[in-house]
Amino acid sequence: MSKTPLWQAISNALREDMAEGRYRPGDKLPTEAELAERFGVNRHTIRHAISVLVEDGLVRTRRGSGAFVKGAPTDYPIGKRVRYHQNLRAAGRAPSKKVLHVETRPATAKEAARLDLEAGALITLRHSVSYGDHQAIALSISEFPEARLPGIGELMRRESSVTKALELAGIQDYTRASTRVRATLANATQALHLELREGAPLIYTTSMSVDQHGQKVEFGRTWFAGDRVTLTLEEDA
Amino acid sequence: MSKTPLWQAISNALREDMAEGRYRPGDKLPTEAELAERFGVNRHTIRHAISVLVEDGLVRTRRGSGAFVKGAPTDYPIGKRVRYHQNLRAAGRAPSKKVLHVETRPATAKEAARLDLEAGALITLRHSVSYGDHQAIALSISEFPEARLPGIGELMRRESSVTKALELAGIQDYTRASTRVRATLANATQALHLELREGAPLIYTTSMSVDQHGQKVEFGRTWFAGDRVTLTLEEDA
Repeated sequence: MSKTPLWQAISNALREDMAEGRYRPGDKLPTEAELAERFGVNRHTIRHAISVLVEDGLVRTRRGSGAFVKGAPTDYPIGKRVRYHQNLRAAGRAPSKKVLHVETRPATAKEAARLDLEAGALITLRHSVSYGDHQAIALSISEFPEARLPGIGELMRRESSVTKALELAGIQDYTRASTRVRATLANATQALHLELREGAPLIYTTSMSVDQHGQKVEFGRTWFAGDRVTLTLEEDA
Repeated sequence: MSKTPLWQAISNALREDMAEGRYRPGDKLPTEAELAERFGVNRHTIRHAISVLVEDGLVRTRRGSGAFVKGAPTDYPIGKRVRYHQNLRAAGRAPSKKVLHVETRPATAKEAARLDLEAGALITLRHSVSYGDHQAIALSISEFPEARLPGIGELMRRESSVTKALELAGIQDYTRASTRVRATLANATQALHLELREGAPLIYTTSMSVDQHGQKVEFGRTWFAGDRVTLTLEEDA
């Protein structure tokens, strides 16, 4: 019933070739004619498969000269010490962040429970998109316990840096206590913000950060563009 | 050109409802008529959307009584100490593993380089599928340095436990030095082994394990069924 269309199977195969490094950033893909022969389909199908890779930001086409593999995925360290800009700078990418929206409102029962708050206590939510080298790589929603950190909403509206805003709220240091990782498919809203196709693969993480006393200061949900980011986890020797 | 079909947008929305816990394991989904009204589509489209969730193992249907949410994703700890059976047992799942294939052959240049071997040195590859409560959750390909661990191929053919085989090869202890995480879409082979749909979301990890002297003993690639597994990463306090 949900048989995979040919163009999709082909775009998946090419996606895998790039993920495995058989085609590397800057490489020219084989011509439409060559790919049509390799996969035993017509050129229209190949063109459709490649248009999907273009939409997902994996490939760019130049009229008359073919399709080229775009930049390699950004390494994004996850672990105890999480500072967004530091992470990306370490990976050699120019980082930037766009705050979409900051709102302060009573928590739902579920939101309150995960931040150890009373039901109905105030929380501040911050929606943002992160970029590396001007390419969208992550969409995040962070929840902060306004009830425990009065004024954090105002600070989040003023400061673009979470670390700075938390510092002004009296949190000198915080660390990530746990991270959970899943894979999912982009919905329409996520696709829009991340500039990719609905149904593109996303890495979905949830994480809890705590201050130096173990109090919860941030619950974060992040959807990473699966084709543009590799989460890396190095263990101490 | 690659506009998302309605049934796919709806199956994604329901998938998200389950991931977010709005529908929990055991819950009955709303009826086809109710869902058709919610999404403003006909029942045929709803039926198609649900058939995709059935194929991906998220939902089961019972004739005459509707569609029900299947088990919650399995927590799968990743980190320095990695022992497959222990991990799943800790998560309360009955673990099992099927070895598909073991082969010993000269390494490609890339395979040799990542295991610190000379080009053309022998490696052993082990292909396997992991199950939790009889549901396929991961497909793995592990590479072992046969040249450094002579006989490891034979041991891998005899022993179903990697830990046991490595022990018999003289490796008393090993730890995971690094893990890299991406998201991707299942290809036909992966879909077959993991019993899910081509194009379903997968978590793709690569990892390097080293012995007590820091020598590389295993390079592993694993594709986890994105809807069935949550990788968890707990930091020490």
